[in-house]
Amino acid sequence: MRAVDVIASKRDGHELTPEEIRWFVEAYTSGELPDYQAAAWLMAVYLKGMTRRETVDLTLAMAYSGDVLDLSQVVDYAVDKHSSGGVGDKTTLVVLPLVAAAGVTVAKMSGRGLGFSGGTLDKLESIAGYNVNLTTAQFYEQARRYGIVLCGQSANLAPADGKIYALRDVTATVSSLPLIASSIMSKKIAAGAKGIVLDVKTGAGAFMPTVEEARALARLMVDIGRDAGRDMVALISDMNQPLGCAVGNALEVREAIETLRGGGPHDLREHCLTVAAHMVRLARRIDDEEALPALKAELAGRLADGAALQKFRTLVMAQGGDVRMVDDPDRLPRARLIETVPVAADGYVAHVNALDVAYAALELGAGREKKGDPVDHAVGVIAYLKVGDAVTRGQAAFTIHANDEARLAAARRRLEHAIAFSTEPQSPLPLFYDTLYG
Amino acid sequence: MRAVDVIASKRDGHELTPEEIRWFVEAYTSGELPDYQAAAWLMAVYLKGMTRRETVDLTLAMAYSGDVLDLSQVVDYAVDKHSSGGVGDKTTLVVLPLVAAAGVTVAKMSGRGLGFSGGTLDKLESIAGYNVNLTTAQFYEQARRYGIVLCGQSANLAPADGKIYALRDVTATVSSLPLIASSIMSKKIAAGAKGIVLDVKTGAGAFMPTVEEARALARLMVDIGRDAGRDMVALISDMNQPLGCAVGNALEVREAIETLRGGGPHDLREHCLTVAAHMVRLARRIDDEEALPALKAELAGRLADGAALQKFRTLVMAQGGDVRMVDDPDRLPRARLIETVPVAADGYVAHVNALDVAYAALELGAGREKKGDPVDHAVGVIAYLKVGDAVTRGQAAFTIHANDEARLAAARRRLEHAIAFSTEPQSPLPLFYDTLYG
Repeated sequence: MRAVDVIASKRDGHELTPEEIRWFVEAYTSGELPDYQAAAWLMAVYLKGMTRRETVDLTLAMAYSGDVLDLSQVVDYAVDKHSSGGVGDKTTLVVLPLVAAAGVTVAKMSGRGLGFSGGTLDKLESIAGYNVNLTTAQFYEQARRYGIVLCGQSANLAPADGKIYALRDVTATVSSLPLIASSIMSKKIAAGAKGIVLDVKTGAGAFMPTVEEARALARLMVDIGRDAGRDMVALISDMNQPLGCAVGNALEVREAIETLRGGGPHDLREHCLTVAAHMVRLARRIDDEEALPALKAELAGRLADGAALQKFRTLVMAQGGDVRMVDDPDRLPRARLIETVPVAADGYVAHVNALDVAYAALELGAGREKKGDPVDHAVGVIAYLKVGDAVTRGQAAFTIHANDEARLAAARRRLEHAIAFSTEPQSPLPLFYDTLYG
Repeated sequence: MRAVDVIASKRDGHELTPEEIRWFVEAYTSGELPDYQAAAWLMAVYLKGMTRRETVDLTLAMAYSGDVLDLSQVVDYAVDKHSSGGVGDKTTLVVLPLVAAAGVTVAKMSGRGLGFSGGTLDKLESIAGYNVNLTTAQFYEQARRYGIVLCGQSANLAPADGKIYALRDVTATVSSLPLIASSIMSKKIAAGAKGIVLDVKTGAGAFMPTVEEARALARLMVDIGRDAGRDMVALISDMNQPLGCAVGNALEVREAIETLRGGGPHDLREHCLTVAAHMVRLARRIDDEEALPALKAELAGRLADGAALQKFRTLVMAQGGDVRMVDDPDRLPRARLIETVPVAADGYVAHVNALDVAYAALELGAGREKKGDPVDHAVGVIAYLKVGDAVTRGQAAFTIHANDEARLAAARRRLEHAIAFSTEPQSPLPLFYDTLYG
């Protein structure tokens, strides 16, 4: 096979054969095929698209470029979730213990990633001693023993995706539906769970700004997963405003613990119950979506009776973390400077700019701009207001947690313009826009 | 400026600014911008196209990436020609002396190139001693002194084009109109002539198979040249069948000499007179195309009175070649094995497959498959028949000139299927399809 022929075929809008796609991915991953040919091919894929069949083949080729885990070796059914990423999205910290408390094994490898407010691993590392680096054997063993594991991507999962993603980043070929979908799904498939719930965010703070774009991506990922033999569901959820209130690593862990205790922000609780219900539904092979309210009620019971929190304690203990921080979140890292940004006038919240909140958290040091940057676990923002809230002058809009005066001032300047108010009542935003079944 | 932004802009179909194009070409030529970013950009250009303005800017950026000659330093007006390449195309060998004999300075640097039957430089090197390697000073001096110079691309002309062309070749981005046009015109503009005649071939044996495609390329190149301050004309000429009869280096030189002596194949003579008339027309600043018949008659006189042949002798002598080979072409390299392929039945020639003839010559050793391959000057094919000719069984269709029995047999097998005959009379092919003025 000649690389230039495969490039030309995609350039001319033809459907590539499974052999062509597999050969291209393998040759690129092995270093046989140079970056410049992969770059031309990626641009052709970006501009000419891929059929569902091609996208599945690309996904599988990337998934099988490295280790492919198989959790069915150790448990009857394991379920995984993926979020396309959002501001204040600590869902995993709540959902995994909640689902495990319902008797379903949850085993997830999270990427560290870039991100405004740290990734799931950074959040977990707010808890002293929490070890995100498990071997594959430890990963399997913990899943079998405790029914819950949440660690870093220690296995060599989808190395082709890593190499291709790095090239996409410098060749303006990131925002392509088949490339995004295959990148996400290759890692999910390699991670070995049978059931996968996708939480695809849409809105001003999300990668997919419109519901239509989010739905198209979700549909494609669900189809890929199904074609690869996985049980799939995708939720299209709102990311115009932050999810919950806390944005920043330890602040988010604290909020997750509050939610696991049966409290927490209403939107976060509802969001987590819905995602968790879908995960349990897949694991119990319930096809009927009518069953969801009952599943949510059952899971709300696991929040109320402490079982979910207990599972979180188990997770933290199993991975070497300091459970005293779970029992007493005041022991989590705390910032030196805490300042409140008040509401300037009476009215209604018309818009909370999730990206402004995210950039404020990033500027405070909660996230990283480039790979390898350290994060400050203590800093971040609490965003109290949701679209539709009635507010009065002087009420707290945000609390800023900072360790540096200049950064605090910068975050404050940004947050002062992050909320739009109206004198007219405003409708609240929905939590979910759509559910796509596999 | 960030490469990824320039790539994204072209990817999204925007018109790049002159600064963006210049920066991209300069950064790539200097090595600052890596191959993979240039490759993604080239594919975006391939699929999204370029406006005329962008194509002109790309052409000029590539032209000014190296030496830019200026023949107006040494002569009042110099004229150059470019052929898009065809089977049996020895036009340059006839046209340059012919135009020079009419008192117009012709100065041309030819690329060696790949090619089925050798490039112009290979053909010239059939003449013992002919030196294609002139310094730029020698190039200027010979143009001034003799009014004719024909050498290799010794100056550092458009190095950006060389680098970009090599990348296009391996990234399936060759056949893009703006990229082809800018590649050709960057070298022509850097070569320093004021007037440029483009001979764009079309047909089964040409890069541009249809008249429409050839016309689009010609129009774009004429526009680029005009925008760059050159006097331009483009001819769309036929390349379904070989031009003239000889295909192969020394065989073509011999045919060129016959034509300069007033003989030669009718199609070659007519083709050369037309191209030469346009070159003279540009040099004499004659806008009126009605003048062409008179110019052709004048040039036919230069063939008849020996002036054109004399200019060819001058050229060969000036560049150190053995003029005895011009005076007595039997002294040119001759092949050891000569064999005739006869016509199998009475009828009319319906089609002569130029590519079959070309591949036969290549297989005999007349051309090179990859850079640096040696060529055999002596070998090649004489293709006697033209579409529309009435033929009788046993008449010679081809003569094969070979230096190797196996290669001869392979060429013969190919040539036996190269001509399609009909029992019905067939119309001859036109020599030209169109003329485009600047």
